[in-house]
Amino acid sequence: MRATVMYEAGDVRVEDVPDARLIDPTDALVRVARAAICGSDLWPYKSMPHDDTGRRMGHEFIGVVDAIGSEVETVKTGDLVLSPFLWSDGSCVFCREGLQSECLHGGRYGSADVDGGQGEAVRVPQADGTLVVLPVAEDDALMPSLLTLTDVMCTGYHAALTARVGAGKTVAVVGDGAVGLCGVIASKLLGAERVILLGSNPERVALGQQFGATDVVRERGEEAIERVRELTEHGAHSVLECVGLEQAVETALAIARPGGAIGRVGVPEQDTTATGVAFWKNASIAGGPAPVRAYIEELLPDVLEGRIEPGRVFDRTGSIEDVPDGYRAMNDREVLKFEIKP
Amino acid sequence: MRATVMYEAGDVRVEDVPDARLIDPTDALVRVARAAICGSDLWPYKSMPHDDTGRRMGHEFIGVVDAIGSEVETVKTGDLVLSPFLWSDGSCVFCREGLQSECLHGGRYGSADVDGGQGEAVRVPQADGTLVVLPVAEDDALMPSLLTLTDVMCTGYHAALTARVGAGKTVAVVGDGAVGLCGVIASKLLGAERVILLGSNPERVALGQQFGATDVVRERGEEAIERVRELTEHGAHSVLECVGLEQAVETALAIARPGGAIGRVGVPEQDTTATGVAFWKNASIAGGPAPVRAYIEELLPDVLEGRIEPGRVFDRTGSIEDVPDGYRAMNDREVLKFEIKP
Repeated sequence: MRATVMYEAGDVRVEDVPDARLIDPTDALVRVARAAICGSDLWPYKSMPHDDTGRRMGHEFIGVVDAIGSEVETVKTGDLVLSPFLWSDGSCVFCREGLQSECLHGGRYGSADVDGGQGEAVRVPQADGTLVVLPVAEDDALMPSLLTLTDVMCTGYHAALTARVGAGKTVAVVGDGAVGLCGVIASKLLGAERVILLGSNPERVALGQQFGATDVVRERGEEAIERVRELTEHGAHSVLECVGLEQAVETALAIARPGGAIGRVGVPEQDTTATGVAFWKNASIAGGPAPVRAYIEELLPDVLEGRIEPGRVFDRTGSIEDVPDGYRAMNDREVLKFEIKP
Repeated sequence: MRATVMYEAGDVRVEDVPDARLIDPTDALVRVARAAICGSDLWPYKSMPHDDTGRRMGHEFIGVVDAIGSEVETVKTGDLVLSPFLWSDGSCVFCREGLQSECLHGGRYGSADVDGGQGEAVRVPQADGTLVVLPVAEDDALMPSLLTLTDVMCTGYHAALTARVGAGKTVAVVGDGAVGLCGVIASKLLGAERVILLGSNPERVALGQQFGATDVVRERGEEAIERVRELTEHGAHSVLECVGLEQAVETALAIARPGGAIGRVGVPEQDTTATGVAFWKNASIAGGPAPVRAYIEELLPDVLEGRIEPGRVFDRTGSIEDVPDGYRAMNDREVLKFEIKP
């Protein structure tokens, strides 16, 4: 069959490869009806070192089931099916929590055994957990929109959910690529009042406006940050970072309102930073100086009624004249916390 | 009056300073009944460059109101009052949202005009927004616990809330200082099933166990990470980072479960990293590879019923043989997204 193979940056070929085939009893064999090139495919296109074997490409596709393994129960031959960009078993602890991207037995498309989506057919592992049957025909006018559900539309939605978009919120979307534009759609769907799209490509921002962006910021870097501040006074409640470059992360942080949330879905340029590490496990990092005044009212009854005894952290008390020695003792870890009675 | 002044790392003195006094009509003058040394006071104690004027110290105190400005309405002379470690007006947009730490007209204790808490008296700006009247006497046995509500107990609670601690969760607390120990209390209060305390000081971890820690990890660095993984299988749902050193942040990230949350309240060692910037505005950073399989089921009806049209991001379609040129065109930003019909 024909399939797409990348050998190094800039070198993409369509070649004859061994036909996709069933291997495990939980597999489905899917003939590709539609597929797409993803923005993330451009990362290796820009930077991949030479590889003699080549890398099979593509992870966004819709297809028709040609054959199923003996244990597959939820899809049958002839079904039109949609696959997420990762396959997943649907039954592990993470899948049951709705975090199939962290499936313990899942994986990525694009190897000799698990074909890429940019080809004539794909072996789909864990077919029951992975595939969703579509109630339309292969030539339906909705096919392009359905195809976006394999990745970019759901990725934009993930950005919006993790950035806590909701009714009445002001949202900023960093990036006018397909994911950023889908982030605009997702923000409107979740009730955002205002959606500011940061992008400079005229056709893309025009489409973003049709999708519901209320404002467009065409500037970049510091100027873009200033412009968003002018538009929002204190920044955006929710920022969707849909690029992945460090500069986009910095912009996202700078335009977030105090107490705001950044939903990051751009594949990180750097994997070793704290936010890069957090990205690959879908973890959130929050916190900062505590709004103590708010919490006092919540916790005061717990202290007054004796349900909590945090005062036990004080293990030495002294007068104000003892304070210098209190610093020394705490710094030497001789004292946990020093209480002063002036 | 007597007050604590720091001149440089290791040089803390108790000195005569001008008496605290009312300046603005919204001020209260508070005679300090109890105060404390905070773990964050140890940062300048370790590293502050020499300052001829000196820095007034202390931001955790309870006191008795000695005088009020003409516009103060909610506290009166003789009241025993608790102050958060920051003062705030109680009326700005952030205060009304419960994020008083970001008050537009608030600030920090510790200057000539706004005294530090480690002294005999303090001028408290924005007294109505800042102070909470306590229903106990100055010699009440609860005073140490009440004193923790000025900072460490509420800070531990902020760590727990931002780390999304809740019923049935497995929590890991990084750090056995006063904030970490209060984080243990907060985690239990919020219903955590299991609380793993990472700390090595015998007395502190013993107190943590009395506060409700179910497990203690005494190892550090890589060994601590391994130990938490053994205890939890996939990591902790919620991680409370109560230290601030970069190594503690790395440990927190490493022991978080995929999809987990890190609540960071340790004052960051580095302010310029993405997480350091986020800390100082109390912003959250979340996101990662989207759990597309979960979202397809949510968004499929929106596509099928025409409420969203994300397929409009495709602006060129070709056969599989056209894919190499599709990569080129997307990389040149000539095409937004390329659709393949094999």
